[in-house]
Amino acid sequence: MYAEQNQAYKEETMEIERIYEGKVISLQKDKVTLPDGNTAFREVVKHPGAVAVLAIWQNQMVVVEQYRKALERSLIEIPAGKLDPGEQPMDAAMRELKEETGFECKELRPICSFYTSPGFADEIIHLFLAEQLTQGESRLDEDEFLNKQFLTLEQAKAYVAEGKIRDAKTITAIYAWELYQKTGRMD
Amino acid sequence: MYAEQNQAYKEETMEIERIYEGKVISLQKDKVTLPDGNTAFREVVKHPGAVAVLAIWQNQMVVVEQYRKALERSLIEIPAGKLDPGEQPMDAAMRELKEETGFECKELRPICSFYTSPGFADEIIHLFLAEQLTQGESRLDEDEFLNKQFLTLEQAKAYVAEGKIRDAKTITAIYAWELYQKTGRMD
Repeated sequence: MYAEQNQAYKEETMEIERIYEGKVISLQKDKVTLPDGNTAFREVVKHPGAVAVLAIWQNQMVVVEQYRKALERSLIEIPAGKLDPGEQPMDAAMRELKEETGFECKELRPICSFYTSPGFADEIIHLFLAEQLTQGESRLDEDEFLNKQFLTLEQAKAYVAEGKIRDAKTITAIYAWELYQKTGRMD
Repeated sequence: MYAEQNQAYKEETMEIERIYEGKVISLQKDKVTLPDGNTAFREVVKHPGAVAVLAIWQNQMVVVEQYRKALERSLIEIPAGKLDPGEQPMDAAMRELKEETGFECKELRPICSFYTSPGFADEIIHLFLAEQLTQGESRLDEDEFLNKQFLTLEQAKAYVAEGKIRDAKTITAIYAWELYQKTGRMD
């Protein structure tokens, strides 16, 4: 039934206007036929996909604070980054964790994957849990500047309540962590 | 200390290239000076902001399934939508709940607000809890086609585990709902 519903509401592409091809994203405008036969336009941002890591060190989550130009402010977020071409999500998650925090982890566990902005973008984030970390050296991209911090669950929840943490993937990770602590399960 | 860190990593805008002005989003490319004095470019998608509603009806959450052109698939999501110009988030949340599901709610409670894709977009979603619903008629936008469904917490969690629910705001709402059931609190 799910598949049939999916099919029933499909929007057929009539034309694609390619507007911008960038370093991180591209933008196109699709002319579509709606289920009732009418025409509409959909603005679509294409993104390579990303990973994020809930990394637990001495009962605290590892977060990084970095300036986000799109928001003109800094955000506290869990370590995260874009997938390289052809890269497996788990490999990317290990790489980003190491690059942004110096921590290494031999075995990550998938928590869930989600689309961040399905109304206008195809970005998907694969979220992982990393425990039993070992410490190494971070190695940031040349245009990356960030501060590493550690938060207990109580601090993290207080940060969400106070609006100091305002990043979707990070809030998702905090909720998942709390349930993991309460139930021993991630799902 | 938080404010100082924020300041330290600020990226100063040197130039803005406006690439696209659309119906839902606009796109610009900012030339910035990094904290180390070097130059970089940031692609920024501007979005009006949005609301989403965790609406509970007879101990089930209300979700809608709709085709998402950016993903070329349908998604199961909580009711949500863009802010109209000048509209308060709580008013928008009541409006979208009514439009997409027919349900009305006199009093919403804020759960949290989050940026969905801070790496390339300024979209913020304000998430609300709606209980004590009354039923009315839905009234969809002319280019909107969706199915309403009801999920228990167990069903919703199973959908996340199976990948049937893959929407960030909806997963956040499910985690918040589970904690609300377990603790009686939303934060």
